[in-house]
Amino acid sequence: MKVQNQTSIRAYKAGGFIGKYQHLIKDVVIPYQYSVLCDEAPDTEKSHVVQNFINAGKAVHGEDVGDGFYGMVFQDSDAAKWIEAAAYSLSLFPDTELEKTVDNLIDIIADAQDADGYLNTYYTIKDKDKRWTNLLEGHELYCSGHMMEAACAYYEATGKEKLLNVMLKNAEHIYQHFIVEKNEGCPGHPEVELALLKLYRLTNSKHCLELAEHFINMRGTDPHFFEKEKEKRDWSVWNADPSDTAYLQASAPVREQKDAVGHSVRAVYLYTAMADLAASTDDKELLAACRKLWESITRRRMYLTGGIGSTVLGEAFTVDYDLPSDTAYAETCASIGLMFFASRMLETELDGEYADISELAFYNTVLAGMQLDGKRFFYVNPLEIIPGISGVAQTHRHDLPMRPKWYTCACCPPNVARLISSFGKYAYGENIDTAFCHMFADGEVTFENGMEFHCETKYPYDFIITYQIKKGGKLAIRIPAWSKSYKVSQNDKELTVTPEKGYIYLTVSDGDHIKIVLDDAPRSQYASVKVPELTGKTAICRGPLVYCFEGADNAEDVLSLSLKRNGTLSVSSYDEALLEGIVTITADALRTEDTDSLYTDKAPEAKPCKAVAIPYYTWGNRHENQMRVWMNEII
Amino acid sequence: MKVQNQTSIRAYKAGGFIGKYQHLIKDVVIPYQYSVLCDEAPDTEKSHVVQNFINAGKAVHGEDVGDGFYGMVFQDSDAAKWIEAAAYSLSLFPDTELEKTVDNLIDIIADAQDADGYLNTYYTIKDKDKRWTNLLEGHELYCSGHMMEAACAYYEATGKEKLLNVMLKNAEHIYQHFIVEKNEGCPGHPEVELALLKLYRLTNSKHCLELAEHFINMRGTDPHFFEKEKEKRDWSVWNADPSDTAYLQASAPVREQKDAVGHSVRAVYLYTAMADLAASTDDKELLAACRKLWESITRRRMYLTGGIGSTVLGEAFTVDYDLPSDTAYAETCASIGLMFFASRMLETELDGEYADISELAFYNTVLAGMQLDGKRFFYVNPLEIIPGISGVAQTHRHDLPMRPKWYTCACCPPNVARLISSFGKYAYGENIDTAFCHMFADGEVTFENGMEFHCETKYPYDFIITYQIKKGGKLAIRIPAWSKSYKVSQNDKELTVTPEKGYIYLTVSDGDHIKIVLDDAPRSQYASVKVPELTGKTAICRGPLVYCFEGADNAEDVLSLSLKRNGTLSVSSYDEALLEGIVTITADALRTEDTDSLYTDKAPEAKPCKAVAIPYYTWGNRHENQMRVWMNEII
Repeated sequence: MKVQNQTSIRAYKAGGFIGKYQHLIKDVVIPYQYSVLCDEAPDTEKSHVVQNFINAGKAVHGEDVGDGFYGMVFQDSDAAKWIEAAAYSLSLFPDTELEKTVDNLIDIIADAQDADGYLNTYYTIKDKDKRWTNLLEGHELYCSGHMMEAACAYYEATGKEKLLNVMLKNAEHIYQHFIVEKNEGCPGHPEVELALLKLYRLTNSKHCLELAEHFINMRGTDPHFFEKEKEKRDWSVWNADPSDTAYLQASAPVREQKDAVGHSVRAVYLYTAMADLAASTDDKELLAACRKLWESITRRRMYLTGGIGSTVLGEAFTVDYDLPSDTAYAETCASIGLMFFASRMLETELDGEYADISELAFYNTVLAGMQLDGKRFFYVNPLEIIPGISGVAQTHRHDLPMRPKWYTCACCPPNVARLISSFGKYAYGENIDTAFCHMFADGEVTFENGMEFHCETKYPYDFIITYQIKKGGKLAIRIPAWSKSYKVSQNDKELTVTPEKGYIYLTVSDGDHIKIVLDDAPRSQYASVKVPELTGKTAICRGPLVYCFEGADNAEDVLSLSLKRNGTLSVSSYDEALLEGIVTITADALRTEDTDSLYTDKAPEAKPCKAVAIPYYTWGNRHENQMRVWMNEII
Repeated sequence: MKVQNQTSIRAYKAGGFIGKYQHLIKDVVIPYQYSVLCDEAPDTEKSHVVQNFINAGKAVHGEDVGDGFYGMVFQDSDAAKWIEAAAYSLSLFPDTELEKTVDNLIDIIADAQDADGYLNTYYTIKDKDKRWTNLLEGHELYCSGHMMEAACAYYEATGKEKLLNVMLKNAEHIYQHFIVEKNEGCPGHPEVELALLKLYRLTNSKHCLELAEHFINMRGTDPHFFEKEKEKRDWSVWNADPSDTAYLQASAPVREQKDAVGHSVRAVYLYTAMADLAASTDDKELLAACRKLWESITRRRMYLTGGIGSTVLGEAFTVDYDLPSDTAYAETCASIGLMFFASRMLETELDGEYADISELAFYNTVLAGMQLDGKRFFYVNPLEIIPGISGVAQTHRHDLPMRPKWYTCACCPPNVARLISSFGKYAYGENIDTAFCHMFADGEVTFENGMEFHCETKYPYDFIITYQIKKGGKLAIRIPAWSKSYKVSQNDKELTVTPEKGYIYLTVSDGDHIKIVLDDAPRSQYASVKVPELTGKTAICRGPLVYCFEGADNAEDVLSLSLKRNGTLSVSSYDEALLEGIVTITADALRTEDTDSLYTDKAPEAKPCKAVAIPYYTWGNRHENQMRVWMNEII
């Protein structure tokens, strides 16, 4: 059964937990990030991204702007992701002031486009001759991709075509270079592929489809492409190794790739486009490759929190079952990319597993990427933090105990903003006669197919979800795999329904109310013994939330705590004063006394105690303290 | 009480466990390593070290040898360490053939010395103008230091003065450069300091003492020295960062250093010289700094196996309590250096703790550095190996599951050879009227003070040690801290003695026999809860040996095993057929069934079973398999 969930929901007005986050994005994150982009945020890494576009515009018009570029080679993408986030937010909360700001920025961007359609401030300001000579590191296609996504989102939100036309022209320029002029190559950092497919879906531009297909299909066909490219040029951005084809997801043609390898964000962006293309072209071989890669990630290379990419070395996947908690990379952007991949797979073949993983990534790693006040961000999301080691030891420098304000490489903060603002796209989908509820999100939803409902829920802290049907039709609701029990009632009458591939199907009429009750019990989690890091350990989940133990709730000492197998897990009532509103879980535990030396042969005594867990996404919001997801278990 | 144990034992003929190893060094390791140095070993990394000296000799005599150098900048030191090992071996096993080979090599080396006393093949062949311009990376002083140690050892073993005179002349050259001509600087890699102190002790050369003192005292006084040096030169070996003074043990004057930091081998080589100088000059402030650094290592930064240096990044110490098992570096050379440091501390202040750590490092990390057949070597000594991850994942590439034959950077193999051949220097010491038994080693010992005894023991697999006294005097015998009980008898009469700082003192006469019975019970080990890696885990030791669990003895699956708290630990009888003769320990354990997915909420069942442990130093001698020292414990 085919689902569309990328462009089809006409309107979504969120309330509840998600609505609160979307308000935060609107009220705090979008204005704050715009001030960063304009270099007006105090005590924050310089961005210069708006000024880069202004300077590029001057350069296009023949002015000498000298050393007018600042930032990473992919700096432009920060503006693009911000526009995309603002667009989604505008579709939720119309705001003429914000729209004016975006229009103004779009004018600046449009002005920076060359007559031939080229658009990239780094090359336009620094050296036009370097265009397209370094696909390995150059990020031109990456930046174009993000701006195409922004263009689609802004058009959908406002109907305004200016940026869309800029990016269609840019796509034509790329088409000219790669297809018409037959210049070889594919992007070092995949992104443009999924963006071109979005453009194709929105505008039906065959060139966009053809270009996406080209980049995907030629990838890995010549494993020495990036090496040859390097030989031809006399410059480099950061001297990336062109021979590490696994890192570049280019060691084999994409249909032959079996393991998720290399830079984790690049990987999932590529897989997203592959899944999208497989659906668009009904390519079964490509879909089969996507399934294999999905399994590689979710069966063997994913953290309990939906984090992916085990190592800071190249921000990359490593090998099966290598999932260290304390040195994890688990980049926020990678989990966002995993949600993209999941959503495209879900469009291609309806299976609750995709939504299960998407939800897991969202409620844990993605939300953990942002401080509760929307003002600070994690790039890296470890499952263990020990002050004194984390952020300090050579091997742990990337695992910070507290969120910084901004980053020199600021990919994650705007990525979180655009994801949260577009949550409806991941929560809901539709086809001609069915509305799909992939995730539970309080609010009003209007579908293109005419269906409408109001969903009411305090999820993820309460597990009762009701749908007040305004315009009926067929309703497909996901029953999460984690929910061991569930009840479904229609107009107060309990139904006997069994999920098919994770979804139950109901026919609903105007005025019906549907009630779903999911399992609210906390669950002890165990990992395969193939994961060396996790032998003898247990973690706690409830609903989609992974829990963790912080020093703040546990006498500032988490290291000496072990959990009791089959101990009681007590769920608190919802405490709206704690960490913006959470439910804590208290576990039966043992506290081990410390030894008086580094090593001893005296078995340390362990005394019964209680240990208090909080949702993982809320960690690091108080002070620098110990944090652990996986705890030793005492049987 | 002062002890001397570096140069004073007149003769030591080992039998038993150590003797077997010393025979292996003589019969296999020394000939094999010489064939490597001569590039005559098949399927082995090219060494070229002998050829480098030959070519340098030609260069000294004005011949053009072109591109005649091959190897690392410190390649010369491999020859030096081999000569030193051969010298110690000759003092144990006179061998005219080997002596001829060494004499021949010494002739080649002497021929490569410049008229002004300079000796280093890298600079002599490649570019004489670069001499002394790059102390940061240049390793000239490091290579000189190793050759000085070789010279001392060979003189002691054979009475031959040629290499000693070469190196005294070399020391004079260095003295001229640094003291007379007042050129600033100290070595990037400490080593020459401890070597100069050895030369001083042997020859009473005041210049050697003065030079060692100079290098130690000036270290860290100008934290920008290496940066200034870099600014003055236009070349680099591997572009080392001169500003990372902590890495270079140069962030503060040595008397102010408190934490063991930076490259771990450099650190302990420096501390060894500091301790030696403190003893030689009765420098209490310096000794106090040594004690602090000793505590930093042994109380907070040392593996259970006596391994030090937690990270491959810079082969370095990290921070307190950061002791990962699977990504450990724990270089073989670093534990050898720790034994050097311990032995100098022991000379300065008699305390069994120093010998305890020295013994721990020796029987575990140092011995693990060499395959049981003497033909392959580990550089890195992790406490956990999981095939598929170890040696493969980006973060685990250095943790190899099997020993390679040789290394491009071949510091460890000859270091193991010289250490084992000189074991007597670490096992025994003396002063004017006392013989000190720091470690237990079967064999005949003759002291300079006139005492003589024969020690008989099957240690470390049996814990009865007898001393047949041939020439009496005072005997100080260490009672290891790990031995909870001990019995001491003199001529079959049990004595009541209490160790003072780890040693018991006896007055013995010719013909006496002394019997020591130590605790032979296996011991469960626990770490401080401050070590995040080790919470909830236990390990097993017996005597000085740390044990580990390998797949080979445990159905090829160690990951699913947990040990039972207070379970039985059964000690096997000595099995001479297994791993060159070992005692295994069988523990009560539980085997956890695997889950059917990466994560599950079903608590996996654990069934009682037995788990078999072998001594850590014997791991990796069968096939590539799982290995763990620290096991999850079930209470």
